[in-house]
Amino acid sequence: MEQRKQIVPVALDDADSALVIVDQTLIPNETRYLRLKTQPEIWEAIHSLRVRGAPAIGIAAAYGAYLGVKASDAADFESFYAEFRRVKEYLASSRPTAVNLFWALDRMEACVLRNRERPIAAIKEALRAEADAIKEEDVRANRAIGEYALSLVQPGIGILTHCNAGALATAAYGTALAPIYLGQERGYNFKVFADETRPLLQGARLTAYELMQAGVDVTLICDNMASAVMKNGWVQAVFVGCDRVAANGDTANKIGTSGVAILAKNYGIPFYVCAPTSTIDMNCATGRDIQIEERKPEEVTEQWYAKRMAPEGVKVFNPAFDVTDAEFITAIITEYGIARPPYTESLKELFRRKETAGKQV
Amino acid sequence: MEQRKQIVPVALDDADSALVIVDQTLIPNETRYLRLKTQPEIWEAIHSLRVRGAPAIGIAAAYGAYLGVKASDAADFESFYAEFRRVKEYLASSRPTAVNLFWALDRMEACVLRNRERPIAAIKEALRAEADAIKEEDVRANRAIGEYALSLVQPGIGILTHCNAGALATAAYGTALAPIYLGQERGYNFKVFADETRPLLQGARLTAYELMQAGVDVTLICDNMASAVMKNGWVQAVFVGCDRVAANGDTANKIGTSGVAILAKNYGIPFYVCAPTSTIDMNCATGRDIQIEERKPEEVTEQWYAKRMAPEGVKVFNPAFDVTDAEFITAIITEYGIARPPYTESLKELFRRKETAGKQV
Repeated sequence: MEQRKQIVPVALDDADSALVIVDQTLIPNETRYLRLKTQPEIWEAIHSLRVRGAPAIGIAAAYGAYLGVKASDAADFESFYAEFRRVKEYLASSRPTAVNLFWALDRMEACVLRNRERPIAAIKEALRAEADAIKEEDVRANRAIGEYALSLVQPGIGILTHCNAGALATAAYGTALAPIYLGQERGYNFKVFADETRPLLQGARLTAYELMQAGVDVTLICDNMASAVMKNGWVQAVFVGCDRVAANGDTANKIGTSGVAILAKNYGIPFYVCAPTSTIDMNCATGRDIQIEERKPEEVTEQWYAKRMAPEGVKVFNPAFDVTDAEFITAIITEYGIARPPYTESLKELFRRKETAGKQV
Repeated sequence: MEQRKQIVPVALDDADSALVIVDQTLIPNETRYLRLKTQPEIWEAIHSLRVRGAPAIGIAAAYGAYLGVKASDAADFESFYAEFRRVKEYLASSRPTAVNLFWALDRMEACVLRNRERPIAAIKEALRAEADAIKEEDVRANRAIGEYALSLVQPGIGILTHCNAGALATAAYGTALAPIYLGQERGYNFKVFADETRPLLQGARLTAYELMQAGVDVTLICDNMASAVMKNGWVQAVFVGCDRVAANGDTANKIGTSGVAILAKNYGIPFYVCAPTSTIDMNCATGRDIQIEERKPEEVTEQWYAKRMAPEGVKVFNPAFDVTDAEFITAIITEYGIARPPYTESLKELFRRKETAGKQV
């Protein structure tokens, strides 16, 4: 567990002048930290998945927004706010699907507006504190998700996960991996199967890496082996993260998630989505309203490879996400509790609970 | 079509002294032919998938068995037969799952025994002719499978295929790709989606390659994108090949096939297995009796890649095949017609038809 905690996916540096991330495109071959000072650097890091995972993207964008206006010499609120808006819109254009990006930026904007009567220097301070709060709340939310998720499973079971919704995707613990880390601390001895998750191999590169570092029993499989593993009776629960959950429970997550959910239902295995409420978009009625990012063909045909692995000029369809219909989701696990179908009701109830709890998670 | 026909996946050379194959591990980066003269060379080529695809493996093994005893100086039948048996057992150990390997070698052995009263030189000649016949029958069988398959679909539809059951996997045309090639000749304008097929990427490297060469509209996807493509309504039929079909219709094919079949059923898309009768093993009651080859972890973690793509020492499960339960298979298409559930009956009926037809396809 010591080693795992050494990796800090996203933070502000001590000098308060740069966003520090571990470059996730280099893991497991190299653990290199990047100090991102300019807006284009931060935009590129999000766009190129150097920092990735919905919660980590939100935190990076929050600190990015702070850094973007920190050096502002605006003399009045209106010009400061205009500057903030430009920064916000620029960072919001880095990736289209993860709602945390917009959620975090909206929250930063609300912080600016809430403090509009104060001096510019105080607004900057407030923005820094808001970004810190987003990060700290993420840690607490992930622990809470882990506890709720753990209540659904027995020690020693097999767990399958897709992509990386682990410590690297968040401030700490992860979402889908949170119950695995908490279980590990308590001697639950889970047997985890990690889908490699083509094309960017987040499962092979990141999930396998961070679980091995934590001493968890993890077996890497290709995405197309999930059916065989389930058929062998090796999986008793599936935990995945998510990039955006619609009000009806439809869930956008890494491409391939919907297939895993359909297989799990076929084999009678519960399929759980781990979702901090920041990823639940109650303004989005169903999965049909979620924009799915399409990425460049080279990720499939040649990136990573020693030689190109498909013919020159081949047509490629490369969506980064897919939508899992609510009917395939056994439960959605949040920091405020567990939502069960029908999600249209249960998610509303969770948000009522969140409001009641105020800002205390 | 011209270019496609130029590639000869498996043949005996003109001098009758070597098995000539195109090294499929190098496609699409290089089209290199190998002349295999020794038994270890032929064994290694099958084992390492330089020649692959159930029908092509059968043909390679048949020619391999011929070449293995061609230079024999045995003076009497018993010692010639003993030599043949050693060659046969050696070649049979190259891969465990594809039944064509054993089927072709059994057929070569039957040829030896059928000719036991003749001079050794004549037995050798008969073996060569038998291997030629296996190859020629494969071409005819594939054309017949293509015609039957084509009768099940409409022009212009979307077709998804997994792995490579194309010309490269057979003597010509392929099995699952046979209807696509025949349709192409008739202006059917199919839109084909090729699963890349991890870990060895036969879909990306081979299927995309041979379909593009034939001018077919093909789009490459990662295996985990099949669900999204089906959900988008882009697929009206799935065609796959197979390595072994049990008497009840359970079908072993490239790992990932069972997942595609379950997805297809979920989305209401017909799922067709294209199977020359040589791949149907009536002595194998169900899929549980089929031995599944497990291959080395490095295929998943580092082979192909510029750098290793998973942590050093990670546990890997790497089965080469999985079994698709008969309940997910809409029909099994053979050179003697189309079998529908219940397969226990329909496959028997096909073999009765085959017997009646004698050796004329």
